[in-house]
Amino acid sequence: MNPALYINQTWLQCMRCGKRADILAERLFECPDCGGLFDVEHDFSGIGDVSLLKEEFGARMADFNHMNGAVGQSGVWRYRELIMPHLPKEHIVSLAEGNVPILHAGKNLCRWIGNNNVWIILEGMTPTGSFKDFGMTVLVSIAKAAGIRAIACASTGDTSGAVGAYAAAAGMTSVVVLPFGKVTPVQLVQSGIYGSIVITLPGNFDACMTVMKELVTDYGVYPANSLNPARIEGHQATAFQIADFFDWEMPSWIALPVGNGSDCSSVGKGMRLLKRFDFVPQTSRILGCQSEAACPLASSWQKNAAAWASSYHPMLKLGDTTATAARIGEPVSASKVMREISASNGAMQIASEYELNEGVAVCGSDGIFVCPQTGTAIAGARNAVRNGTIGKDETVVIVSTATGLKFTESAARHLEGKIINLDTVSTAAVAKILHL
Amino acid sequence: MNPALYINQTWLQCMRCGKRADILAERLFECPDCGGLFDVEHDFSGIGDVSLLKEEFGARMADFNHMNGAVGQSGVWRYRELIMPHLPKEHIVSLAEGNVPILHAGKNLCRWIGNNNVWIILEGMTPTGSFKDFGMTVLVSIAKAAGIRAIACASTGDTSGAVGAYAAAAGMTSVVVLPFGKVTPVQLVQSGIYGSIVITLPGNFDACMTVMKELVTDYGVYPANSLNPARIEGHQATAFQIADFFDWEMPSWIALPVGNGSDCSSVGKGMRLLKRFDFVPQTSRILGCQSEAACPLASSWQKNAAAWASSYHPMLKLGDTTATAARIGEPVSASKVMREISASNGAMQIASEYELNEGVAVCGSDGIFVCPQTGTAIAGARNAVRNGTIGKDETVVIVSTATGLKFTESAARHLEGKIINLDTVSTAAVAKILHL
Repeated sequence: MNPALYINQTWLQCMRCGKRADILAERLFECPDCGGLFDVEHDFSGIGDVSLLKEEFGARMADFNHMNGAVGQSGVWRYRELIMPHLPKEHIVSLAEGNVPILHAGKNLCRWIGNNNVWIILEGMTPTGSFKDFGMTVLVSIAKAAGIRAIACASTGDTSGAVGAYAAAAGMTSVVVLPFGKVTPVQLVQSGIYGSIVITLPGNFDACMTVMKELVTDYGVYPANSLNPARIEGHQATAFQIADFFDWEMPSWIALPVGNGSDCSSVGKGMRLLKRFDFVPQTSRILGCQSEAACPLASSWQKNAAAWASSYHPMLKLGDTTATAARIGEPVSASKVMREISASNGAMQIASEYELNEGVAVCGSDGIFVCPQTGTAIAGARNAVRNGTIGKDETVVIVSTATGLKFTESAARHLEGKIINLDTVSTAAVAKILHL
Repeated sequence: MNPALYINQTWLQCMRCGKRADILAERLFECPDCGGLFDVEHDFSGIGDVSLLKEEFGARMADFNHMNGAVGQSGVWRYRELIMPHLPKEHIVSLAEGNVPILHAGKNLCRWIGNNNVWIILEGMTPTGSFKDFGMTVLVSIAKAAGIRAIACASTGDTSGAVGAYAAAAGMTSVVVLPFGKVTPVQLVQSGIYGSIVITLPGNFDACMTVMKELVTDYGVYPANSLNPARIEGHQATAFQIADFFDWEMPSWIALPVGNGSDCSSVGKGMRLLKRFDFVPQTSRILGCQSEAACPLASSWQKNAAAWASSYHPMLKLGDTTATAARIGEPVSASKVMREISASNGAMQIASEYELNEGVAVCGSDGIFVCPQTGTAIAGARNAVRNGTIGKDETVVIVSTATGLKFTESAARHLEGKIINLDTVSTAAVAKILHL
């Protein structure tokens, strides 16, 4: 049989000891020698002329045509030579994810942050409403190439939606394990609609992740969490889209929320790739943002950035936060986050509950409804401007990881008492409220 | 002062008696002579070479660049020569709406409908999660050109979100009037987040619409409902995108849900424009779909399609339906719907509650989560295939008007009892459920 992906084309490599493994054969996604995380690596010897490739990426925007299907409309597979260059096209499982807008922040938000060069990439405008689709299209494509029939994940809510949708699109079975009462009702329903088996556990996300890891090691389940580094490859498209949008000159900063760490790891890895082949003259600095309630990486960075790896430890007792999707005390990709923040000469920032919810509200008042995790990045960027980490004239792109539509409960609390319920159908009564 | 839009370039014209009015001066959007609805008309004498314009539309897909802002990323303004050819660019208020995916329906849905040539245009992948953004970007741009400071709408939920977002983006005040208990919690919150004044009334949508009309006539409020035909101009982009996607050959059928009738009116008007200038050799037939609970147009069409206008009457007593956003007994654009269904040699179809919810579930099982109104169109298409209206080999594009994320309550009811809540954190217990 002709394998779909040769190990000498695309392989797994332990980020700690360098051991190689076969991406199609791997099920545990943990180095058997040293326990380190794997990176996906590719043979890029055939990459060719970078300026031609840039032109090709641009031209593919016009692939929006019935003959090209979902892949032709995908902002992830548009960059396939950088993301999964050797995967035969017939294994791709796409729902036309990506090609999301990048908008200049509105007046209110710029004023609130104290910087007029703020942009937002809206990764909630994806098939399942979150950035997870960027990675899941790649993971499920690899799973398909590997002949996998069922995939599973632990989730704070957004991953489960993406797992459900892409498994359904690929005709696979999916299982999602969620912390009871710690995901929004919308998130709970979403994967069920896609046909996932939905199981809640009486614990936090980290407990779900432990169960998930045991399902992988003890029962041979195929993991769709970001410990499976195929996800990371897809999320790199965030960096590629930003680079492309700014004419291949990276902005000074990219601010993003850090939960399990997959997006931060991906943006960093993607930028290093762009730099390696001279797509861009230099990379952005990454601002990783966490809520006060769940800030294992940000608090250890602030304590000792120079010896971060030794000052870092999981946060065993988590606070309550509306940013439930990033309420994670022991991020799976912690070591990758540290690598990328350090490599990009970046920083980490903490946002209080009040600040992150205010960030969502201010962004909303400009017409953009984002999730509370995005609020963390917005408030983090503001704090970084205030303490001088980010210059007032530096360009900042905030990664909005999900639509606010998946997180309306916290928005509803914010609006409490503001909705006016009249007890009569009366135009005069409405006019009176409006002072007409 | 130099007006933003000359009346001899773009004007309102009564669809019944032909009377002309100034689009920037108009506030009532009802013909003062005969009470008819207005259409927006344009001087298209400068339209130029159609094949060059087609090329230009394609090339604009690659306008995705920081220099071109939101407009360069908009799938509505991409077709500006057809939508609002004389509006100066500085009046455009865009949130990068449109350019939504058009996906081939999955295996399960094709089997359920009984036709393998089914496609779905995902108009829920827009800034506010519904198709309303297509029209609202145009309405708010016109309002801005007219110097309007505040806009208002009655809404079943989706319009209010769009009104809130675009008013916020334009720096305008907005007011939304909603039927108490008849919109989803997500929809109730959304416009509030954008800063709208949110008022609920103890009646159905038609009661809200009556109040809204009185606010317009008696208090000079500027209406953002689709009685304001600027909305219709933007929604035409649905037809333009479909035409473009299929190489300027329209599919045999376009199936869509009909609530107030704006989308049906727009798709019909847009296709007639495409045909008029030979962008396409022929138009699609429109299949307008309504739920049993609210089917004033579909039931009268089925009674007497030949003398539809005389058999049509509002549906005063509405049933309960999960398709709340189309629960309208007296559609504002009824006469336009009749015009376009008839002109396109189309048809209307009724879907039962069971069928429309099953349609959502089947579509979800392929990885696409749509709203219950889309379910009406899916089930309507199926019924039309079953009764021979749509041929088994004819191409059908279903318009998905919103993301399912805005309508999770009905999805939750569908999933009742299916989510498994374990009372212990145990990998063995999870493995047992999965039969591992």
